[in-house]
Amino acid sequence: MRVLALLDGTLADPDAPLLRVDDLGLMRGDGIFETVLVVNGKPRELDPHLDRLARSAEMLDLPEPDRASFERALTLVLDNWSGGTEMALKLVYTRGVEGGDGTPTGFALGLPIGAKVLTQREAGLSAITLDRGIEPGLAERAPWLLLGAKTLSYAVNMAALREAERRGAEEVVFTTSDGSVLEGPTSTLVTVNGRTLTTPPATLGILPGTTQAALFRAAEREGWTVVVEPIAVVDLHSAAGVFLVSSVRKITRVHTLDGKPLADSSAIHAELADLYESEY
Amino acid sequence: MRVLALLDGTLADPDAPLLRVDDLGLMRGDGIFETVLVVNGKPRELDPHLDRLARSAEMLDLPEPDRASFERALTLVLDNWSGGTEMALKLVYTRGVEGGDGTPTGFALGLPIGAKVLTQREAGLSAITLDRGIEPGLAERAPWLLLGAKTLSYAVNMAALREAERRGAEEVVFTTSDGSVLEGPTSTLVTVNGRTLTTPPATLGILPGTTQAALFRAAEREGWTVVVEPIAVVDLHSAAGVFLVSSVRKITRVHTLDGKPLADSSAIHAELADLYESEY
Repeated sequence: MRVLALLDGTLADPDAPLLRVDDLGLMRGDGIFETVLVVNGKPRELDPHLDRLARSAEMLDLPEPDRASFERALTLVLDNWSGGTEMALKLVYTRGVEGGDGTPTGFALGLPIGAKVLTQREAGLSAITLDRGIEPGLAERAPWLLLGAKTLSYAVNMAALREAERRGAEEVVFTTSDGSVLEGPTSTLVTVNGRTLTTPPATLGILPGTTQAALFRAAEREGWTVVVEPIAVVDLHSAAGVFLVSSVRKITRVHTLDGKPLADSSAIHAELADLYESEY
Repeated sequence: MRVLALLDGTLADPDAPLLRVDDLGLMRGDGIFETVLVVNGKPRELDPHLDRLARSAEMLDLPEPDRASFERALTLVLDNWSGGTEMALKLVYTRGVEGGDGTPTGFALGLPIGAKVLTQREAGLSAITLDRGIEPGLAERAPWLLLGAKTLSYAVNMAALREAERRGAEEVVFTTSDGSVLEGPTSTLVTVNGRTLTTPPATLGILPGTTQAALFRAAEREGWTVVVEPIAVVDLHSAAGVFLVSSVRKITRVHTLDGKPLADSSAIHAELADLYESEY
């Protein structure tokens, strides 16, 4: 089941064509998106997602997304969903058609959670590290590289996942050329050691994670130490737990990295999953 | 005027919606394109463009584009064009809809040449250098970064052009972090010194240029020396001529770089333009 709603507050048929070929979202990957997890009709971290959408828009010099219109569209999707307990809710916003009047294209699309993600939530996954070609300082020095914006230009993220598949793995941990951990193509990395959660800083040129933020909030409240600082790839192999977290995948264990088994983090995973769920 | 034709050999209305919202070309910038210059009904460098489309498809693990279908579609566009002497002919090819049967989305779209490009062909343009964040060797080491593939994920290219505009310039010359010249966001860079044409090697992670190749072919035939080797940014300021070349812009002079006037290359420009036109 899929439900599609437009920013003008109308429903549309997701199987029917909606976009012109000259939409800059298609022609130039010139647009932004968010993916929100909805459970039992309630979107999780909606405000942080809408805040991040606005931040991405600013980084791309797009008109500020109209929050009320997005809220109206996504409410329409929620109200018309009958596809089960969980939904992945995509919010998309492009620069509109080339040579047009500058009106952005925007919509909210409700989708089922993919079977692969559901399996990985339970079983964990194997990942490989791949060089993202980013040096420290680049994001701040070169804002036109849009590092840390959630754009529709995700061809590299998709290519990285195909490279993982080719190597018999399921996911990717992007790294800097000098061996510092960045993020997954569609997730944030979190390590656990004792009662400390660590994630790399967004200033490295990565996306600030909404799920990671929710997890850290819950963990801190329960007395954990949460740290935002660079993580070396070598530290992943000695960590008590390595996790890729995102709205749709929640907290997913990495059980194997670059072909080497990581520490069994099943017990930590259960604890983190409870912490995360305690937020809702 | 715009003319749109599909890979099944039918015309379509370019003002009508054609793409579903879940086309991966939109959702992930997961697709490729070419822009071919058509003059008096004749596409220029069509074979190199179709070759490069096939090469980009291979880099993205897309099914090989069906050449006959693209030729049929573009012929249909040519046959139905009444928009003047010149046309920009876009060929687009995406991974199709998410979770679909893997059938790519493809089309050919004929567009008029933009007024800005026509002005710049005559008057030249001012450019700025911007760090592309690419180190030498990265393209070969990390093929998943798709450096040198012509993908729909062009948000960074568009952001760079907006940065140029902010700084009062019109175009961008991307550079490596260590000051080596790469390419423009939608063009190839060529320098002239005496009777020598130079362009940076594609192995740096840039697109092999179809117009640059045609120009070099013509120049070599007329006794020029053509060189493919790295160019330092500092050498642009001492060159007799600096040009951004692409199908649609042809050979365009850069008259100002980072706010500093470059050598007057009007006479060289006329000579190169003649060389290029002699190919057709």
